[in-house]
Amino acid sequence: MLNYTLPLSLGILAGLLGFVVGMLLQQDSSYRSINKAISNDPYIYERRQQIYEATMFFSYSCSIDPPQRTPCAVSTLMKYGFPGLDDIHIYRNFVLSYDRRNRIAHWVCEHLARDKLDCDDPVVHKPSEFLVDTSIPLLFRASARDFYKSDWVGSQLASPLNYKCNAYDYFETYMLTNIVPVSRGLKTNVWSRLEQHVRQLAQQHGSVYVYTGPLFMPQRITFRNWAIKHQVIGVNTVAVPTHFFKVIIVENEENCDQLPYMEGYVVPNAELDKEIELSVFLSEIRDIEHFAGLKFFEGDRREYQNLIENVESRATLDT
Amino acid sequence: MLNYTLPLSLGILAGLLGFVVGMLLQQDSSYRSINKAISNDPYIYERRQQIYEATMFFSYSCSIDPPQRTPCAVSTLMKYGFPGLDDIHIYRNFVLSYDRRNRIAHWVCEHLARDKLDCDDPVVHKPSEFLVDTSIPLLFRASARDFYKSDWVGSQLASPLNYKCNAYDYFETYMLTNIVPVSRGLKTNVWSRLEQHVRQLAQQHGSVYVYTGPLFMPQRITFRNWAIKHQVIGVNTVAVPTHFFKVIIVENEENCDQLPYMEGYVVPNAELDKEIELSVFLSEIRDIEHFAGLKFFEGDRREYQNLIENVESRATLDT
Repeated sequence: MLNYTLPLSLGILAGLLGFVVGMLLQQDSSYRSINKAISNDPYIYERRQQIYEATMFFSYSCSIDPPQRTPCAVSTLMKYGFPGLDDIHIYRNFVLSYDRRNRIAHWVCEHLARDKLDCDDPVVHKPSEFLVDTSIPLLFRASARDFYKSDWVGSQLASPLNYKCNAYDYFETYMLTNIVPVSRGLKTNVWSRLEQHVRQLAQQHGSVYVYTGPLFMPQRITFRNWAIKHQVIGVNTVAVPTHFFKVIIVENEENCDQLPYMEGYVVPNAELDKEIELSVFLSEIRDIEHFAGLKFFEGDRREYQNLIENVESRATLDT
Repeated sequence: MLNYTLPLSLGILAGLLGFVVGMLLQQDSSYRSINKAISNDPYIYERRQQIYEATMFFSYSCSIDPPQRTPCAVSTLMKYGFPGLDDIHIYRNFVLSYDRRNRIAHWVCEHLARDKLDCDDPVVHKPSEFLVDTSIPLLFRASARDFYKSDWVGSQLASPLNYKCNAYDYFETYMLTNIVPVSRGLKTNVWSRLEQHVRQLAQQHGSVYVYTGPLFMPQRITFRNWAIKHQVIGVNTVAVPTHFFKVIIVENEENCDQLPYMEGYVVPNAELDKEIELSVFLSEIRDIEHFAGLKFFEGDRREYQNLIENVESRATLDT
């Protein structure tokens, strides 16, 4: 009798042990594969909580996080969330939501860090023409030809000057998905000053996230009637936005627990007076959300009036 | 020596068996949970292939498919794919992509089956007002007030008359996400005839899928300039489309292997002559795709000219 008890209990014990190890290993292999899928696919990333819940039987996992794709990982770039989920494309240094109807981006999200802005020998070789993103179906692509002989010039939403330390990163901003029709007078003046302002914030505070995109604002037609009117150019009918927005999220280096500070700018897509102050274009992030149909992070959004005072007092201090 | 071999090999065998059973059971539990998540979430549904690949270690699964949510299951309704992936909402009888910028739907997809259209006592109690979908953030919702005192009337994209056999289904079409500003003259005449045409196709052929949505078409301003101009109404600036489209997919009952036959219609959002033939509004599905920024199923898309001849000959036969 004793002869049977030992092998039997040993067998049951080994079986149970094997069972648990098997479940753990299967879960672990799933976990690794899911993490790989997440780092490549924004939609799986967005639903990661539900997918983890569905597949993780044990809350414990023996796996360490797999090394993330460099330099761009969705989770790093999208720390403050997706403003919208339409047709997301991931590049090395920015994430972009593409508007197939208007053939321009809905928004582009970038992360500027102080150490990536400074370098000894900047690379500024412009590619001879815009680059085509073949992941967009031909039917919904804009082409460089659409901009020929129009009153508008193709300009980047994610500024190439943010990436002048790396030739490949610099080139990537010439992707046609990142290009919008911009008024010539705006591009060389107010818009480039606004981009410079974002880089300055990154230099000062170390880490800045910025969302840039087009706006289509209504105009009053008669007393009670409002309408949106915007040009379309080229055979692909690329939409010319009436305005552009920038939503800037500035992280606090010293106090990470504090909510990041946020600024919103709205600039009309037209030639503007060169002397005009940037603070004139400050606007409520809620208004940008309303007209763009996007939802941004709920950070420390200073009230409009305070914002202007704040920027003005900073400007006074700087001089 | 012999005394150790038996319990040892028994233990190893039991351990291995337990290991495999453990892995299988864990995979099976994942599979069930994922399928549950898929039937509730369109984004997980869209990426189901990648998620299955990531989590299924064995190609064999001991699970049978779990019972699907009735009456609406994403997989049934979306048999011919998602034209776009922006902000998807699933209702009992239609799936809808919401345009947060314009506060109307991008498209609504329905499935009409012959047996669901016929019933003895139709229910046609209209709700006293439109229903609010609380899954849309307040900032991006239209409200019934937006339509007051405007030249436009709120009308359904998914027609309530398709669901007059079930009071709950009928009510659901009064969701504000399904409502668009329509010209009064269009709603009562050409548009309702087009909806009737879709129901007739379903009666004739048994099963019809239909995508309905708004279009914003450019007009010529000067010789080389084109622009899109559309009104916005109410405090929520709800966009008034310039046109509407319907893309109809008719399944062949007798020959399931054959590609389904497709028709596209584009109707201007204006009061139209009552006598006008529906065939006048037939248009290339490719043009609808271009202006809506959507991608439809590649079925048997008859060429424009053939389409008109075909519809005309059918009309002749019917009379």
